[in-house]
Amino acid sequence: MGNSFGKLFTITSFGESHGRCVGVIIDGCPAGLPITEEDIQREVDKRKPGASIATTKRVEEDKVEILSGIFNGVTTGAPVCLLVWNKDVDSSEYEKNRFILRPGHADYTAFMKYGGFNDFRGGGRFSGRITATFVMAGAIAKKLLSHCGIEVLAHAVEIGGIKARPKEFDEIKENVAKNPLRCADPKAAEAMARLIEKAKEEGDSLGGIIEGIAQNVPVGLGEPVFDALDGELAKALLATPAVKGVEFGAGFSVAEKRGSENNDSFTIKNGKIVTMTNNAGGILGGISNGMPIVVRVAVKPTASIAKSQSTVNIEKIEEVSLSVEGRHDVCIVPRAVAVVEAMMAVTLCDFAIRAGLIPRVIG
Amino acid sequence: MGNSFGKLFTITSFGESHGRCVGVIIDGCPAGLPITEEDIQREVDKRKPGASIATTKRVEEDKVEILSGIFNGVTTGAPVCLLVWNKDVDSSEYEKNRFILRPGHADYTAFMKYGGFNDFRGGGRFSGRITATFVMAGAIAKKLLSHCGIEVLAHAVEIGGIKARPKEFDEIKENVAKNPLRCADPKAAEAMARLIEKAKEEGDSLGGIIEGIAQNVPVGLGEPVFDALDGELAKALLATPAVKGVEFGAGFSVAEKRGSENNDSFTIKNGKIVTMTNNAGGILGGISNGMPIVVRVAVKPTASIAKSQSTVNIEKIEEVSLSVEGRHDVCIVPRAVAVVEAMMAVTLCDFAIRAGLIPRVIG
Amino acid sequence: MGNSFGKLFTITSFGESHGRCVGVIIDGCPAGLPITEEDIQREVDKRKPGASIATTKRVEEDKVEILSGIFNGVTTGAPVCLLVWNKDVDSSEYEKNRFILRPGHADYTAFMKYGGFNDFRGGGRFSGRITATFVMAGAIAKKLLSHCGIEVLAHAVEIGGIKARPKEFDEIKENVAKNPLRCADPKAAEAMARLIEKAKEEGDSLGGIIEGIAQNVPVGLGEPVFDALDGELAKALLATPAVKGVEFGAGFSVAEKRGSENNDSFTIKNGKIVTMTNNAGGILGGISNGMPIVVRVAVKPTASIAKSQSTVNIEKIEEVSLSVEGRHDVCIVPRAVAVVEAMMAVTLCDFAIRAGLIPRVIG
Amino acid sequence: MGNSFGKLFTITSFGESHGRCVGVIIDGCPAGLPITEEDIQREVDKRKPGASIATTKRVEEDKVEILSGIFNGVTTGAPVCLLVWNKDVDSSEYEKNRFILRPGHADYTAFMKYGGFNDFRGGGRFSGRITATFVMAGAIAKKLLSHCGIEVLAHAVEIGGIKARPKEFDEIKENVAKNPLRCADPKAAEAMARLIEKAKEEGDSLGGIIEGIAQNVPVGLGEPVFDALDGELAKALLATPAVKGVEFGAGFSVAEKRGSENNDSFTIKNGKIVTMTNNAGGILGGISNGMPIVVRVAVKPTASIAKSQSTVNIEKIEEVSLSVEGRHDVCIVPRAVAVVEAMMAVTLCDFAIRAGLIPRVIG
Repeated sequence: MGNSFGKLFTITSFGESHGRCVGVIIDGCPAGLPITEEDIQREVDKRKPGASIATTKRVEEDKVEILSGIFNGVTTGAPVCLLVWNKDVDSSEYEKNRFILRPGHADYTAFMKYGGFNDFRGGGRFSGRITATFVMAGAIAKKLLSHCGIEVLAHAVEIGGIKARPKEFDEIKENVAKNPLRCADPKAAEAMARLIEKAKEEGDSLGGIIEGIAQNVPVGLGEPVFDALDGELAKALLATPAVKGVEFGAGFSVAEKRGSENNDSFTIKNGKIVTMTNNAGGILGGISNGMPIVVRVAVKPTASIAKSQSTVNIEKIEEVSLSVEGRHDVCIVPRAVAVVEAMMAVTLCDFAIRAGLIPRVIG
Repeated sequence: MGNSFGKLFTITSFGESHGRCVGVIIDGCPAGLPITEEDIQREVDKRKPGASIATTKRVEEDKVEILSGIFNGVTTGAPVCLLVWNKDVDSSEYEKNRFILRPGHADYTAFMKYGGFNDFRGGGRFSGRITATFVMAGAIAKKLLSHCGIEVLAHAVEIGGIKARPKEFDEIKENVAKNPLRCADPKAAEAMARLIEKAKEEGDSLGGIIEGIAQNVPVGLGEPVFDALDGELAKALLATPAVKGVEFGAGFSVAEKRGSENNDSFTIKNGKIVTMTNNAGGILGGISNGMPIVVRVAVKPTASIAKSQSTVNIEKIEEVSLSVEGRHDVCIVPRAVAVVEAMMAVTLCDFAIRAGLIPRVIG
Repeated sequence: MGNSFGKLFTITSFGESHGRCVGVIIDGCPAGLPITEEDIQREVDKRKPGASIATTKRVEEDKVEILSGIFNGVTTGAPVCLLVWNKDVDSSEYEKNRFILRPGHADYTAFMKYGGFNDFRGGGRFSGRITATFVMAGAIAKKLLSHCGIEVLAHAVEIGGIKARPKEFDEIKENVAKNPLRCADPKAAEAMARLIEKAKEEGDSLGGIIEGIAQNVPVGLGEPVFDALDGELAKALLATPAVKGVEFGAGFSVAEKRGSENNDSFTIKNGKIVTMTNNAGGILGGISNGMPIVVRVAVKPTASIAKSQSTVNIEKIEEVSLSVEGRHDVCIVPRAVAVVEAMMAVTLCDFAIRAGLIPRVIG
Repeated sequence: MGNSFGKLFTITSFGESHGRCVGVIIDGCPAGLPITEEDIQREVDKRKPGASIATTKRVEEDKVEILSGIFNGVTTGAPVCLLVWNKDVDSSEYEKNRFILRPGHADYTAFMKYGGFNDFRGGGRFSGRITATFVMAGAIAKKLLSHCGIEVLAHAVEIGGIKARPKEFDEIKENVAKNPLRCADPKAAEAMARLIEKAKEEGDSLGGIIEGIAQNVPVGLGEPVFDALDGELAKALLATPAVKGVEFGAGFSVAEKRGSENNDSFTIKNGKIVTMTNNAGGILGGISNGMPIVVRVAVKPTASIAKSQSTVNIEKIEEVSLSVEGRHDVCIVPRAVAVVEAMMAVTLCDFAIRAGLIPRVIG
């Protein structure tokens, strides 16, 4: 259990890193949405490995296939099943070390929870690879959101301590695809690239921060107190392996602020009520307030590192040392940008449908 | 919709700040748990206003009543309904200013979402008062968790920029009730108290950070990928008004860390596999790893401040200035400590039941 | 768990027969619906004991109280809590016989499931009295449905083998309140009354069949394959104690029909597609087809009878004989009519909200 | 939405009759269950077309493939994806008549609900073919149930008015596979076969009744009041196209019974409390009582008949006549027996996991 997300727009993820495929069911997708495998492929390619110095050597074609729910290029209202077959699978390293717990990975928790029956190859169900299923679902969500004008965008704002300078939405949008770091500040991107190169040489890895922004979100999305917009977004984003924190608007900096600084004053602009600042990150009382939704997630450094680490062989219950050889990203942040975008889109899409913003039949 | 949380141990919150009562249904509570109104009262009293210089002048007796689900002092397996009646209600200020949007509050979003039909008195459903319902449910959850040895504890670690020095679990437990700030570092607590006094004089407010810790959580709680332990905890905690961020273990500091620093090495201690550090905050792959669960939430400064703010009258659509007179906390952190503890307990209880750690019938 | 029903319009029932109260939370009720305690009282009175020869001697005032979610006579969008306090409670009989399993009741299953901690007084959570909570929720659902023209009506069509002659909707509506049997055929009602009198004298009880009809249901309600309209209606109706079967349209008679007889031919009437017959009971493929929804439930004879029965003392594990003295309905059918109406309304309301037929804000 | 069923053991069905495949995700399947494609194939073959005179000419190989969740022949705890590819697809007839509403089918409701975007070929998502996904999930559920001794069995008890004589469980088990009618009474089976032959010649179809029985169900399954065992079973079974009614134990016959006849007296047998009769069908108060669960479903005659019917062309909004040529079952009952068995197993499995009867890790 636990592999479904969303109340009216519900995604169910399945598949493992080295199994036959990774896939997703989207249930509750309105009928009448034109969607092609290419539309989904475009999003999936954004998180494709091999596109940057930061990423793993594993090269998957990751060709999206539609198994159900789309007929004559249009959604039918039936559940949409999308998948990519796993092809470039090399499990040898994992077979060899199957009982050596990789620090920072779910090897230990998965072994204990599933009694050692979990598919350990490549992390199995706990691999970053399963986020490809999030991105496939996100592709459909983004297309649905475009029907009510909502646009979602994510970008890398920090890697290994190097911070990008703040940019306006349009500049982020323009710049984000220009470098493999998915960072809207070209200068910072260069420094990040150098740092990644250095960490790679050292057999180490880097963490960072991704910011997600949703524009044109109308007032009223979110179902407090528990199905709050921020609560559901946090839950959705924490499903991504390596995310260790989520904050909205001013986030953790509120701890040092006075109310008079942090409160966003209301004002009237073109006859519309808006706030002068956006410390709330577009959410008040768990409900969108019409300002951009701004969320940041902390991404930990890749757990797999070449550097030697001390750990435990769970079969023999003995301490061993481990250097993770395989093929890994030095920093997962650039590829995870597409995942943040996808999960924000999925969450907002669910709320937009709950609010009646997206009709059950489109067009 | 949206007022229920939890899959097998499900709480449903109801009531408004100035309505007749605030209450909660707990469905899925195992039968056979001895519980009295006093047990619940003890927890509710921890978030009671009036206990500290930091808090509102509103004095509620907040006497807990059991309406159902408990017979002869023991849970029956039927839904437990708990409530406190609202008594000390002064709505005059709210009636007067009902169309003036208080910055930082949900007045605007609630008005827009519910077409102006929302109960605006005291923030209605969006008042911090509704967290009394979380604490009532948490009282039961904590008692259930004690049956499998799990202990949950929260404390204030930062207020207005003043940080408490790190303490061990036992010291936190001993110190937290010793000052009205719910801070385990007595020195920091004094400085916090002075800062609160100062902010009060200035008609301003302060934010802070609360840390929650769960001890003796066995390996295996959490249902990835979406019902992950961290995801559900984050969702639960963000239901508390004023929380703007959630982080686990090393949290946002991972952005500046190398993998070799951040990975928690596994080792063997008394024949048990543990990690040497706890940057993961007790969660790997969305599943508890046997180490303490450590979560921190960012609490924004109280939105209600005496200082004049510019805002909008939503009836006349005109800009106005507002000084919130009413009765408010200068800093909500000390009272929210009990809420963090409660929502952690509720979440862990749900997972403990899912995992079969707490039987359907106790004793 | 298990005390909530509905996805967007969610009711959560609580309370016991001889506890402090029985109540219900309605979460997801659109804002802006005018509703008074009298509106709800009117529905609750329909299932009130003491209104007919068929029913128990227990006389409850059953005065509905609104605890939350309604402000100035209008729903606010927050959860609505409604309850009736239990007043006329005589538990002596139950205390005396607490370990004697009453045949046909849930005494045994409740004892086993909840380890003997269940509130046994008056059947506790398993009493027919809890259907008062269904009727309270139904009162709100019916009012919401009236906003999209949907009308729900139930009536007794069979008691103890005596069948009412079929009537048109309008005649049923006119006749159903004219006799305490809630039967639209006055002749049958008289015969039923005599049969009930006779069964009473014999210390026995009677079962029957209730039919529920929903008019003006638009095409399209229901979410196949699992959240089908018929599936959810059946689940809702089976929550009523004593219901042992549910059928739609031609129901079990389809077993003897040819396809050529059973298929409802489509035709055009006033430019609208309709079917010439309604063997489908208004549902095709789990979705409403625009014809009246017709459902029938089988209600078993009241389990409590004065006649001596052989049974078991569960404490001593020995066979005993039992004559249930207390106060009971000879036939529950007349009072259950209001319950069928209520649960149909609740189910249809949930689907109408899912389909966007009832807006989130009314008026 | 609506394509998932079950709370802890959750199945999500996808696929269409003439699309690429039909499949199912099983989320919440305990780890450690040995399961092969052959195990599932065996169940799927039971509902395979072409096995009897009663069924369609469409011949699908229906070869089950495991896409995820099973590693080295054992479940891993990750979601299990199973599917069969559609191969023998002839959509010509459907393309030709796509706007002609087939009476008794979901053509009209699907067209209206999904704005004409539904996949109409072979009924698309509304085809009986999707019950292959139920049977795949049921195969796993049955294997899990065998771990706690529960056995589920279904059989045809009536076709076209011909009733099978009642048999004991063991005799049913032995006889049911001996004839293509899945009827445990050989004499009745012969008469049924003749009647089917006759209906076929007349271009007509037949309905019937299927009975499902679950043996060795322990006391305590079911979560009243709404997630009652009978309520969930009814919902599960009504997901099968053509089912128009569900009854438990004495079912609709209770309407003609006295309480003294209908109540099942408790007695002691081998030190265990049992009932002398089973009019309750093994369920009291929504909870299993340890007696066999007995449920019957009414299956309508196949909607597709060769006989000419009057209907409507929805594109032209004009009345037309239609003779459904395609390939269809004269009577769906024999094939639906496997579906009833599967959905009973799925429902019981969910409750058995909720009750902790099946552990999260097996073996």
